[in-house]
Amino acid sequence: MALRGVIPPLVTPFRPDGGLDLPAFESNLEKLAAHDFAGFLVLGSNGEAAGLEAEEGLSLVAAARRRVPGRFLLVGTGMESTRGTIAFTRQAAGLGADAALVLTPHYYKSRMTPEALERHFAAVADASEIPVYLYSVPAFTGLPWPPGLAAALSGHPRIAGMKESSGDLGLLGRVIASVPPTFEVACGNAPVFYPALCIGAAGGVLAVANCAPRAALALYRAFAVGDHGRARLIHEALVPLASAVTTGHGIAGLKVAMDVAGLRGGSVRAPLPPAPESVRDELRPLLERAEAAAG
Amino acid sequence: MALRGVIPPLVTPFRPDGGLDLPAFESNLEKLAAHDFAGFLVLGSNGEAAGLEAEEGLSLVAAARRRVPGRFLLVGTGMESTRGTIAFTRQAAGLGADAALVLTPHYYKSRMTPEALERHFAAVADASEIPVYLYSVPAFTGLPWPPGLAAALSGHPRIAGMKESSGDLGLLGRVIASVPPTFEVACGNAPVFYPALCIGAAGGVLAVANCAPRAALALYRAFAVGDHGRARLIHEALVPLASAVTTGHGIAGLKVAMDVAGLRGGSVRAPLPPAPESVRDELRPLLERAEAAAG
Amino acid sequence: MALRGVIPPLVTPFRPDGGLDLPAFESNLEKLAAHDFAGFLVLGSNGEAAGLEAEEGLSLVAAARRRVPGRFLLVGTGMESTRGTIAFTRQAAGLGADAALVLTPHYYKSRMTPEALERHFAAVADASEIPVYLYSVPAFTGLPWPPGLAAALSGHPRIAGMKESSGDLGLLGRVIASVPPTFEVACGNAPVFYPALCIGAAGGVLAVANCAPRAALALYRAFAVGDHGRARLIHEALVPLASAVTTGHGIAGLKVAMDVAGLRGGSVRAPLPPAPESVRDELRPLLERAEAAAG
Amino acid sequence: MALRGVIPPLVTPFRPDGGLDLPAFESNLEKLAAHDFAGFLVLGSNGEAAGLEAEEGLSLVAAARRRVPGRFLLVGTGMESTRGTIAFTRQAAGLGADAALVLTPHYYKSRMTPEALERHFAAVADASEIPVYLYSVPAFTGLPWPPGLAAALSGHPRIAGMKESSGDLGLLGRVIASVPPTFEVACGNAPVFYPALCIGAAGGVLAVANCAPRAALALYRAFAVGDHGRARLIHEALVPLASAVTTGHGIAGLKVAMDVAGLRGGSVRAPLPPAPESVRDELRPLLERAEAAAG
Repeated sequence: MALRGVIPPLVTPFRPDGGLDLPAFESNLEKLAAHDFAGFLVLGSNGEAAGLEAEEGLSLVAAARRRVPGRFLLVGTGMESTRGTIAFTRQAAGLGADAALVLTPHYYKSRMTPEALERHFAAVADASEIPVYLYSVPAFTGLPWPPGLAAALSGHPRIAGMKESSGDLGLLGRVIASVPPTFEVACGNAPVFYPALCIGAAGGVLAVANCAPRAALALYRAFAVGDHGRARLIHEALVPLASAVTTGHGIAGLKVAMDVAGLRGGSVRAPLPPAPESVRDELRPLLERAEAAAG
Repeated sequence: MALRGVIPPLVTPFRPDGGLDLPAFESNLEKLAAHDFAGFLVLGSNGEAAGLEAEEGLSLVAAARRRVPGRFLLVGTGMESTRGTIAFTRQAAGLGADAALVLTPHYYKSRMTPEALERHFAAVADASEIPVYLYSVPAFTGLPWPPGLAAALSGHPRIAGMKESSGDLGLLGRVIASVPPTFEVACGNAPVFYPALCIGAAGGVLAVANCAPRAALALYRAFAVGDHGRARLIHEALVPLASAVTTGHGIAGLKVAMDVAGLRGGSVRAPLPPAPESVRDELRPLLERAEAAAG
Repeated sequence: MALRGVIPPLVTPFRPDGGLDLPAFESNLEKLAAHDFAGFLVLGSNGEAAGLEAEEGLSLVAAARRRVPGRFLLVGTGMESTRGTIAFTRQAAGLGADAALVLTPHYYKSRMTPEALERHFAAVADASEIPVYLYSVPAFTGLPWPPGLAAALSGHPRIAGMKESSGDLGLLGRVIASVPPTFEVACGNAPVFYPALCIGAAGGVLAVANCAPRAALALYRAFAVGDHGRARLIHEALVPLASAVTTGHGIAGLKVAMDVAGLRGGSVRAPLPPAPESVRDELRPLLERAEAAAG
Repeated sequence: MALRGVIPPLVTPFRPDGGLDLPAFESNLEKLAAHDFAGFLVLGSNGEAAGLEAEEGLSLVAAARRRVPGRFLLVGTGMESTRGTIAFTRQAAGLGADAALVLTPHYYKSRMTPEALERHFAAVADASEIPVYLYSVPAFTGLPWPPGLAAALSGHPRIAGMKESSGDLGLLGRVIASVPPTFEVACGNAPVFYPALCIGAAGGVLAVANCAPRAALALYRAFAVGDHGRARLIHEALVPLASAVTTGHGIAGLKVAMDVAGLRGGSVRAPLPPAPESVRDELRPLLERAEAAAG
């Protein structure tokens, strides 16, 4: 039941010169570990994995494993090639990852048919020592998720679930309806997290949990105990912040929000542009509103 | 509170030769009027309004008005030009429409800026004797809804709400958060109807209500009394049917489902292709499952 | 050989109050008729056909027929329904149209399969007394042209050719390669008119020909006599204007350019927004450059 | 004048087990070097660069440099991060690359504004010892090219040109019109290569040149000497093959065509699916037609 609850996709702080700031990463993780998260994701999209060198990624996995020894550690290991994904998944497992989150390969979009993707995920899972979660995020990959693919893979003994980040609840519902209840589907899109729970999502992998951990967790708990009134109130307080730190200002905005919240967001790595100065003042009241709703 | 509940977007039955089958339309309306719908929509997308002659449309409005004299009658009146929309809205009002549903003009997509759309809707509402509801359905128009437009128009005394049919609950949530509570936002996409209610949609304008009226209404009532467990069960039973009669088989499929359910769907008008024969057998168990869930 | 050369898609001038300005339309046509155009298109996309009432359209056809009695008159007759298109095509033929330009129906996009479109065009051509030209303009319809459709229809005795306005020369080339030489393919996108001629387009239906008739015709003539050096020079002088009056400022910009050129563009019909005042000064030097290149 | 002419984007042959087949790569290069190409591209999209490990890429660059010591060697060096791109560009230069082809970063699409891309390319060029060429291929990246970006960068002393692979000749024409004549724009889309030359493209980087080198070069030469009749004939013979080995069957198809042509295409790397057996028989006559046209 690894994805039942909330998982923050950890950001990767950089120094102003673009170098990896591992101490800031560890400091954030230490603070976030005080919360009742279901686990932690390293090397996700919000972790700027696409812009990291391979060794940097491994150092983040190792650091995370050291810092949260008893917690569920999910690691993004998807590469464009099947063999590269297998190799990196093995390395992550060797460093103590509990499970791998495998992004859809997407550069050769028109060739990534449902059959090609099925072969890819199955080959990765066949070769993996740890459970594999499927990962679709069309806003970044430009590749829509084929509706039947999760069901086709859900029988594999090492494919445990999926992170669906499109925000399309019609699709999320179809996926959930097509898989056995043991196959966990997490929502990767905070503005639709509450309604996704209502239709059967197991939990959420939510960028906003990096900067508003209490609100994200309070929303999940309210839903879990059937308090829809409270869940909707927190939802309404959380969504403006969640939108601002994703579609609004992107990872740079999320990092500013973390700074405001007392964590260490740090810089983004170029070519991601830094957030303008004014974002800090825009995010502060949104953060306050979100955390106030957590009560 | 016109949109609180469920409204079926009435289909327009055609004879096999493509001619309008007004008796079938009236027969359906008479049967559907036995249900506790919040109202009825004539000349929506599911009513094949795009393929009707102007006089045919007016005859449908007049017939509907006769058949459901005391019920809320919403009429689709959007045309590509502002002046054409104004003229048709006046004609519909003259025939007894209670409100107008105004589609985004969309042929000249790149020119339909938020400002151009705002001027269009405001001009139509200025000239209208009846309340106006905004209508966005990007799957047909190819035009996304500008996030701030509903808020900009929500202060107009004759703009009463919106039908949002994209199925994007992130957008729906942003619209709801941006307008006063008196501005009603209806969901036009059955697979996300239940989660849309959870985040504040007033009701639903649902194609599937034409063929499964009891299930659509039971879902709304379960939500309205706070029975989320029952709401989700009906949602799960209704969605496969709702998907089949929209994204799956389109209006032709919806009409077959109505035939199976004892109404008179009739033919679609070319170039819409007829549903294959096999659809009837595919839809029957979906219909049964949906209506069984209504209890 | 109707499409060999250049055809202007005539604009529809409106008075400032949005009413049809038929005298301005006739005045423009009289002036344009002095040029060696292959014919004239009435009720195309640039003619704002989508925003016209049916009677307005017929009055434009009748006026055009009176004004250019011996010239090739092409009329846009495509509607969303097959029966509506057939009826309007007959009306246009009755008023003296030489051929019909039939737009792809597109509102129910996901149902407009190649088969549905083939049946539509074939049914229209079967019922038509005049030759039919296929018309695809995805920027407005949101519907891509199925690559094999022109070939499938090219054997019909009354389907004479196609206007392809996507600007995708890969597609244009595939269409040309798939049809017999008697099936004429016109380019509806001025920025790629010259390269389209190089790969076998018969001619062009070009918005810019309304305001820069000499340049558009000079480009075609240079190509026709094999003077590629001159053709490219005119192309380079014409494209900035052509882009400004289509993608840049739309039909409102085209109408301003016509005013500057001594014709009567008039107003656009709402919700199309008027061009800002500054456009006049922006277009004047582009017009001068284009017409100067015509020598 | 590096891009004047034709450059094959070299494929990367793999063994059936997915391992790099360097001898096959060198064998192909030796054979292609007998032709009058303007140069060779290593690590482009057709070279499956997205699925290569870093060391594999470097070994291909080194091998290419050894095999074609006096020829223009262009190397794809674009990564998602600016610092990663700079580092890899330096490594390629150190191995003897004559110039770098830098793909648009694209994972964080919505953040890749014209300004962010301009800073990225400028920073890479500032740090590079070798000339830099910009590279846009929206079919893979999902990122359209901002029209003004080439002009903004064309003044940089080490930015020498661009490879534009969208196939949108309207865009290609705008780019060419916006840059000085010394800034070379190559077409990366064989079906529009001939018309791209007609409007000012310097040359082509063409996948089909791997399997039909004589035809690709003959087309360029015919254009270069002003023989448009011959150029168009070769264009018509070449396009069916070029489409088949790109949009039709992808890189797997291109590799089969190379096998048929006597080179060593080898396997693709998973998750790219292998071409079905029937492709060989489909491609053979297309190859024969293309090479026959070369005379």
